[in-house]
Amino acid sequence: MLNLNDLYSNRAKRNAGSFLRQIFPRTREPGVINFAGGLPNPDFFPIEPIIAATEKAMRMDGRETLQYGMTEGLLGLREWIADRYARQGLKVTPDQILITNGSQQGIDLIGKVFLDPGDKMVIEAPGYMSAIQSFAMYEPQFIGVSLNEQGMVVDELADTLKQHRVKLMETCPSFQNPSGLAYSIATREALAKVVSQHNVVVVEDDPYAELRFMGAETKSLQAYLGEQVITLGSFSKIVAPGLRLGWTLASPEITRKLTLAKQLVDIHTNLFAQRVLFQYLLDGNIDGHINQMRGVYLSQRNAMVDAMARYFPPETVFTKPEGGMFVWVTLPEDADAMALFNLSMDTEKVAFVPGVPFYTDGKGKNQMRLSFSTQSPAKIEEGMQRLGRVISSYLDAPSKN
Amino acid sequence: MLNLNDLYSNRAKRNAGSFLRQIFPRTREPGVINFAGGLPNPDFFPIEPIIAATEKAMRMDGRETLQYGMTEGLLGLREWIADRYARQGLKVTPDQILITNGSQQGIDLIGKVFLDPGDKMVIEAPGYMSAIQSFAMYEPQFIGVSLNEQGMVVDELADTLKQHRVKLMETCPSFQNPSGLAYSIATREALAKVVSQHNVVVVEDDPYAELRFMGAETKSLQAYLGEQVITLGSFSKIVAPGLRLGWTLASPEITRKLTLAKQLVDIHTNLFAQRVLFQYLLDGNIDGHINQMRGVYLSQRNAMVDAMARYFPPETVFTKPEGGMFVWVTLPEDADAMALFNLSMDTEKVAFVPGVPFYTDGKGKNQMRLSFSTQSPAKIEEGMQRLGRVISSYLDAPSKN
Repeated sequence: MLNLNDLYSNRAKRNAGSFLRQIFPRTREPGVINFAGGLPNPDFFPIEPIIAATEKAMRMDGRETLQYGMTEGLLGLREWIADRYARQGLKVTPDQILITNGSQQGIDLIGKVFLDPGDKMVIEAPGYMSAIQSFAMYEPQFIGVSLNEQGMVVDELADTLKQHRVKLMETCPSFQNPSGLAYSIATREALAKVVSQHNVVVVEDDPYAELRFMGAETKSLQAYLGEQVITLGSFSKIVAPGLRLGWTLASPEITRKLTLAKQLVDIHTNLFAQRVLFQYLLDGNIDGHINQMRGVYLSQRNAMVDAMARYFPPETVFTKPEGGMFVWVTLPEDADAMALFNLSMDTEKVAFVPGVPFYTDGKGKNQMRLSFSTQSPAKIEEGMQRLGRVISSYLDAPSKN
Repeated sequence: MLNLNDLYSNRAKRNAGSFLRQIFPRTREPGVINFAGGLPNPDFFPIEPIIAATEKAMRMDGRETLQYGMTEGLLGLREWIADRYARQGLKVTPDQILITNGSQQGIDLIGKVFLDPGDKMVIEAPGYMSAIQSFAMYEPQFIGVSLNEQGMVVDELADTLKQHRVKLMETCPSFQNPSGLAYSIATREALAKVVSQHNVVVVEDDPYAELRFMGAETKSLQAYLGEQVITLGSFSKIVAPGLRLGWTLASPEITRKLTLAKQLVDIHTNLFAQRVLFQYLLDGNIDGHINQMRGVYLSQRNAMVDAMARYFPPETVFTKPEGGMFVWVTLPEDADAMALFNLSMDTEKVAFVPGVPFYTDGKGKNQMRLSFSTQSPAKIEEGMQRLGRVISSYLDAPSKN
C-alpha cells in the first residue's frame, strides 16, 4: 500500500535534479566537442605517484587507515592544509580545518548549520549552479548581486545588506564558476569593509585559487574578514576529483559546528583516500604538478579566447580569465542560449552550458559557460570555429525561435 | 560584527554532538578495557590485498578512477552488490543500488528525502543512536516500539501504525545495534503483514547481516516487503570502515530520489575507494574473509556471554547474540548505568555505553551496551571479571547515587 507522493519531503519534491544531468546524455553523443563539463584534465592525474603513496601509507598505517577515524579528518592532512595558507601570510591552525567529501559537501554542511527556511542569502549573479541547488534544499530566499570585471559589485552588495537581514553570502572570488572572473584586490578590500559592518557569514568557495596562470596573486577573503569567512578548498582541481577530498577553513567555533553536523551525515570522510593523498603530498611534487597544470590550462585558455576573437561575431562578449577553467560568453540581449545549444548540437555538435541555471531569477538567457579544461588547443580551435558558425547563423536568422 | 548565535539554524542549535563523543576521551585513558566502541577488529583488515587491488585498479582504470564519476556509484560495484542479494533469492538490479559514504550517509539521505518537521517515524526502543540523532536533524516526531527476544513487538507496532500516520520506520533486524537481537522469521512475516497495510517506508539498517555466527539464516525484509523497504548495507563491518563505503537498496523510483539528493550533498562517493574495493572483491577472498570474521567474533562473543554468566550478579540480564558485535545488559529497575559507568571507569577502568542515548524518551537508565568486537577473549574475560565486581558493589551499595 505504497503511495510515495504522500511520503516524500517537500524538499525532495522540489529537487528536480541538476540541469547538467539533463543535458549530459546529449554531450556524450559521438563526435561532440564538449565544453559543457567542469572537469580537470585527466591526462595529468598522478596515477603512479598515487599507487606508490598507497603502498607506503598502507604499510605504515594500514590498521589506522582502514579503521573508523575522527570526524575532523586526518590530522596530518589538516596540518598540511593549514601550513599551505601560511604562504599567503595567513595563520591557520588544524582545528580550523574540517576534511569534507569534496567542497560540495562543505556547501551542504554550511546550509545545514546556517539556514532555516526563509532565511536570506546573497549569491553571485551569475553563481555556481551546484551551490545554488544545494543551498536551495534548505529553502533560503536568494538575493542575487551582480558581478563585473572586478568581481562582485560592492555598491549593490552594500545596498542589499542594508535593505535585507542577510545571514549568508556565497562567493567564488577566484576564477569563478561560471564566469572565470576574479575579484580584484580593491574589490576584496571594499567588500570586506562593507561585510564587516553586518552580522553575516561569507562563504568563499575557492577551488580554483591555485590555478592562477597570469596576473597578480590575491589573498583569500580570510585575510580581510577572518572569522566572518568560511573558505571551501578542494583537491579536486589540483590533484584529482575522484578522491572526493576538500575542506572547510573557518574559525574553530564554526568548524566545531560543521563537524558536529558532519558526524551525523557520514561520521567522517574516507580515511583511506585521506591517508593516501597525505602521503602523495609528502612524497610527490605537488608544486611541480600545480605549475604544470597552470601551463596546460593557460595554453588551453589562450586557444579558446584567441579563437573566440577570430570566429565569434563581434556582438559577442566573453571573459578572459586569469585562472581556472571557464569562459563566460554573453550574446546580444534577445538571443536564447538554450535554442543555440540545440542548434549547435544538431548542426555542429559543440556542447556548452546555457546561462539560465546560473541565476535564481531567470536571467542569463543570452549567456553561456564554456570550459577549456579538458580539450586540447587543437580541439578548442576546431570547436570555436564550429561554434562561431552556429552563433553567426543563429544571430543572422530572421526569427530566433 | 559577528554574532553566531543569531546565524545558526535551529537544527544546528539543537545538535549537541553524540554521547559517544562525550565519553570518548575517558575511554582512551591508559589501562582502560574498552567495550564502548562499535569498531570492527583491525587485526583482520585486508591490508596487503588492498595494496594489490589499488595497483591493479589504477593501472587499469586510473584516469576514470581519479576523475569525477556518476552520483549512483561505480557500476561494477553496484552489480557486485546486486548479485550478492541473489544468494538470498532476491532479484536486485544495479539501478536499485546507490553507493554511499558508509551506511550513515544512507540514513541522512533518507531523512532528507522523506522527513518534513513534525512527520511521525517509528524507531526501535532501544534503537541505533546515530540513526536517531541523524533523523532528529530533520525534526520528526519519534515513536518508539519495543523489542523482545524475537525482534520488534509486532502487536505494539500494529497499534502504533493504526493510531498514528507514520511515514518512516527505522529497524535493524539483524544483530541490532545496540541490543544484538535479531528478528525471527516469524517476526519478519508478521511485521510484513502489518506494514503492508500502511503507507509507510521501512528502513532496514543491515550492516551486520553477514556476521551471523550461529542460528538459522534469515532473509532481508526486502524479501517480504519489496518496494516498501530501503535496505542500508555497508562494507564497514565486512571489509573496513576507513573506506567509508555503504549502499542503499530500494526501488528504482526511491533510489532515483536518493540519488538526486546525494548529488547536491557531495556529487558522488569517493571513486578511488570504490574502484579499489571493487578490485579487492573481484580478486580477494571476501567469503573466506567474512567466514574468518564470523569465527573471530563468535569466540569473542562466547568469551563475553560466558564470563557475564560467571561474574555478573544473577539479577543482571543480558542478550546472547547470534551475530554482530553487541551484547545488551539490563540491570535491576532502579540502577543507573551512567553512575555505574563513572564508578567503573574510576575503580576498574572498564568502559561501556550507558543505555539512555539509545532511546528518545528517557528510558534505558538501567541498561548498557557492550561490544565484544575489538577485544581478545582473554581481555574480555578480564574485563567482565572487573565489571562484574563493579556491578556487584554498585548493586550492594545502600545508596546508588
